[in-house]
This record gives sequence, C-alpha cells and structure tokens, in this order.
Amino acid sequence: MRCVLVSKRLDLRRYYGAELARIAPRVEVVDHTADTPAADVRLALAWHPPDDAFARYPDLQAVCSIAAGVDNIIACPSLPPDVDVIRVVDPGQAQLMSGFITWNVIGHQRGFNAFRNQQRDRIWQRREQRRAQEVPVGILGNGAIGQQVARDLAYLGFPVMSWSRTEKPVPAGVRGFHGPAGLSAMLGETEVLVNLLPLTFETRGILNAKTFGRMRHGGYLIQVGRGEHLVEDDLLAALDSGQLSGAALDVFVTEPLPQTHAFWYHPQIAVTPHDASDVSISAVATTVAATAEAVRAGQRPPHAIDRARGY
Amino acid sequence: MRCVLVSKRLDLRRYYGAELARIAPRVEVVDHTADTPAADVRLALAWHPPDDAFARYPDLQAVCSIAAGVDNIIACPSLPPDVDVIRVVDPGQAQLMSGFITWNVIGHQRGFNAFRNQQRDRIWQRREQRRAQEVPVGILGNGAIGQQVARDLAYLGFPVMSWSRTEKPVPAGVRGFHGPAGLSAMLGETEVLVNLLPLTFETRGILNAKTFGRMRHGGYLIQVGRGEHLVEDDLLAALDSGQLSGAALDVFVTEPLPQTHAFWYHPQIAVTPHDASDVSISAVATTVAATAEAVRAGQRPPHAIDRARGY
Repeated sequence: MRCVLVSKRLDLRRYYGAELARIAPRVEVVDHTADTPAADVRLALAWHPPDDAFARYPDLQAVCSIAAGVDNIIACPSLPPDVDVIRVVDPGQAQLMSGFITWNVIGHQRGFNAFRNQQRDRIWQRREQRRAQEVPVGILGNGAIGQQVARDLAYLGFPVMSWSRTEKPVPAGVRGFHGPAGLSAMLGETEVLVNLLPLTFETRGILNAKTFGRMRHGGYLIQVGRGEHLVEDDLLAALDSGQLSGAALDVFVTEPLPQTHAFWYHPQIAVTPHDASDVSISAVATTVAATAEAVRAGQRPPHAIDRARGY
Repeated sequence: MRCVLVSKRLDLRRYYGAELARIAPRVEVVDHTADTPAADVRLALAWHPPDDAFARYPDLQAVCSIAAGVDNIIACPSLPPDVDVIRVVDPGQAQLMSGFITWNVIGHQRGFNAFRNQQRDRIWQRREQRRAQEVPVGILGNGAIGQQVARDLAYLGFPVMSWSRTEKPVPAGVRGFHGPAGLSAMLGETEVLVNLLPLTFETRGILNAKTFGRMRHGGYLIQVGRGEHLVEDDLLAALDSGQLSGAALDVFVTEPLPQTHAFWYHPQIAVTPHDASDVSISAVATTVAATAEAVRAGQRPPHAIDRARGY
C-alpha cells in the first residue's frame, strides 16, 4: 500500500519520513509529484493540500491529517466525498495545549503580565490576589483536548464550564452546556473564554461581538481554534470598550500573521505563532499505521471524522 | 483577653481590625502605643515588630504571625523564649502560591516569555515544544504549601522531587529527599528549583553557587522563600555563565527592591513585588481566634512553631 505526502505548506517527508519508515514499515511513502505512480495509493498524509491533489489517486481511501484539525483537508475541492478523513488524537498534544491555556488563564487571573511592565519601570506595586474560584472559565469544544483542559483547570480550582454543539458527557466537577441556548447560558457566567472548536460552517465567526457581549465585563479570550473563528474587528471593539480586558491569540486567518496586522501592536493582545501545541511526529506516524491497518482489513479507520458535520 | 497589634511595617488594624472583631469577638484588640495597658495582653498579632515591642507585656503567651513565615518575629530581641509563635496555615494561600509557581514553571518549560519579545519585534518564530515530562522540578520545603505545589505540578505531568531537612511523607507521585546528601542528589536531577523553605540559621544562603552548580545546566530558579536564602552575586554569576537560564524572584533582602538594584534590569530575572501569595485576612483572624481559645484553655495553640528549629 502506498501513502502519498501532500502539502502546499510543509515538507512532510522531512518531518515525518523517518518516523513513518520506523512505525509504518509496510506502507510505501511517496511524494506528490507529476510522476507519482497513482496505483495502490490508498492513503494520503495531507496538510493544506493543493486544490487538485486528490484527483490523481483513484484508489484513495483515507486521508490523514497531521493535526487534530482537518478543516484544510475537507475544504480541498478534489477530495472525493466517500474518502475517510482522519484526525490525530494525541494525549501529549492535549497536555501541551492544556499547559498553554493554563498559563494564560493564571496570567489573566493574577494579572502577571502587568509585572513585566512594572519591572521595566521599576515599580514595586502589589496586585489584588484573586483566587482561582473567582475566575470562571468557559471552554468551547468538549473533545479529547477540551476535556483535558477542563479537567486540569478544575483541578487547579477554577470553576469550569464546557460547551459542545450536541450534549456530551463532561469530566467530574465541570458543568456541561450544549446547543445555542446552552452557549448563551455559559457565556453569561464566563470570564475567560477558551476556543477549542473545530472549524466548520457553523463555528466560523463564532467569536464575535454578540459572544463577547454576553461574557462578564472585563473578560479574556484564549483563541486556539482557527483564525476563521474570530471576527477580528469585533475583538478590537470589545477591547476598546473594555468588555474584554485582553486576549491571547495563537491562530490567525493568515499565518504567519502579516507584519502590518493590528494584533502585533495591540497592548492587550498576546500574539503567539500557532505554537500552543503540536501533535508529536510519532503520533502522526502511529495514526498513519493504524489507518493503513484498518484500510487493509476493510474497516473504518479509527478517528475518522464525520464528513457531514465536518469534525 | 487582649491582643496587641505590633508592626513597624503595616497598619495591622486597618487590614485585620474588622475581621478580628467579627471572627474573634471575645478578644479585645489594642494597638501597640506608649499608653497600651499591658494587663491581660496575652496575645499579639505581629509583623516585623520593633526590637523592644514584647518587653512591655509580661502576660504575653502567644504571638501570631500574619503569614506562613515567622522569621521576623522570632528574630525580635524582646520576644521571651517561652512565648509560643504561631504561623498561619491557609489552604487558599497554598493554592495562590501553587498558581504563581505553576505559571513560572510552564513559562520556563515552553519559553513563553520569549514570545513577548518576539511580538514586540513582530517575529513569527515557533519554539521547541518540550513536554512537562522533560522538565524535572525540585522543591525545597515540604510543608503544607510545598506539598500542594508538588501535588499540582505532578498532576500536570512534571517529574516532581521534594526536599526537607528531615524525612517526611510526600504526596503520591512525588519523590522525597532529605538531609544534606538528599539535597545533593535532588539537585543533580533538578531543572527548575523552587524555594519554599522557612528562613532559619541553616537555610540562610542556601541558594548559592554550589547549589546552582549541582543543578542541570540551563536550569531555572523560582525564589518565593525569603530574600536571605539567596546569595545574590552567586545568582548573577550563574546567569552569566549559563548554568541558570533564568530566575523568578518574588522576595528580596530589602523590600521594596531598591530602584538601583541589578535585579530590576536583568533580562533573565523576573521581579515580582512579594506578591506570589498572601494569606487571607480571614485566615489571620481565624488563627488569632484559635490561638486565643487554646490560651484560654491552657493548651498549646495549633500551628505553634518549634522555637529551637525556627519553623
């Protein structure tokens, strides 16, 4: 069985080649070029594939992402509707993501970033010490990563709420919400909003003026979903009005974030370079191996998404 | 029973007066002035007392601190040797301290502070994502606060070690060390060193060149004990040589830290204004009430320290 590597953005062979050879030795890895033999290419490993990429492989049965998100793959016009799309589920990534979010939640709770500015100006000025119990966190997205984040923040004492489109079980000590009414209810109690949603038709633009307006005044946004979740002007307006006191943004519509973009310059926005959490190289290779095994056995691969709902 | 408020530094009545009246209504709170009636002053609430403060109160039986530390009280020359000194044990403070430490540990693990500088220069540059499992943390001090910090960091995936002078039980998942040989052994595996020790004759200057030299190269110091634990020049030398990559300092020999002090200006040192964690006002008042009750009953107050060992 062949697996073709398809990306406009990354040299996938450079990142994953050695680990694929080690973990999936029965899979022949080929590059996506004009001369790639199409026969027996039943798998692809893809990230931002070119629009026409999948038209060349009539035997294709499954496309693996290199990440938890698959939006850039299912948006590819040449992806046949019956091909399975596989996301990577990596507990190590969930832990990294939780660390990124925990750091930002505590930073907001305690106002620690202010100390950096105070040090620059050599100002010895203590701050009000708010307890974790006083800072309710609302998490958009209740998948494997959302659940780990919810568990960790609840353990550290924060009141944690979790929202998903449809009703789902939540970790102990976490309050679950779902559907449009649930979203409204959760936002009404939320001071720190964490976006971990997949990007779908329904979630595009979900971080907007209405959403911010329902949150506690002076709230904080941690945006680790996709750039397209956020209505950028609405965030700037919410910061101007004081409805939000700050935001940590790790994802953007255009990455790298253009040099002239207002977010770089905004004193209440922390920009990070889409670096909150990666899946590990071995988790990607393991996913390809498990997918190949399922395809060989004629079974549906694990972590195949629902193409209709988009995640 | 009277309780006298004694401090060179703080207006204790302003901070604690109302809560003492509420929680310890049977205790008459008096200020330490030239006219304070000495009779029946069996308690004091003290913080950096004047040298001669306690000479005036022959009935004194117990002195409560407003914090977990008591070093400034037992250093007072007029404190009679048989008077009990009481520390405040406050789970809320332990949680705040753990949040401060967790924020600094994750910041070191992931290099998040670098992103602030990158944003200033509009540099889109990702960093190596180290897992929590790769960053061993050694904690000096295994009291109530040290145990909470150890538990929380272990829960978040860090390998956690804990050291105390004498052997003590440690939380599940934490490796315990004790005594001089144990300190050496722990430091040899430590990347992030957290100082939560009480200040005693034995711990003064414990954060020195020898200690830093035993740690992993490129280690990080989180100093939340007392300023006198640290040999300042040794820290600067360890940063210069690269033996340490950074330090978060919350306590200093002179507070506020003088405007001309090198720590303010050092790019690898994060200065915070002794603000990692306070005990709550109600925890202080509750401690005074419990101490008064024990004194009334002729019992040893809870959380009385061992005067000989100093904590």
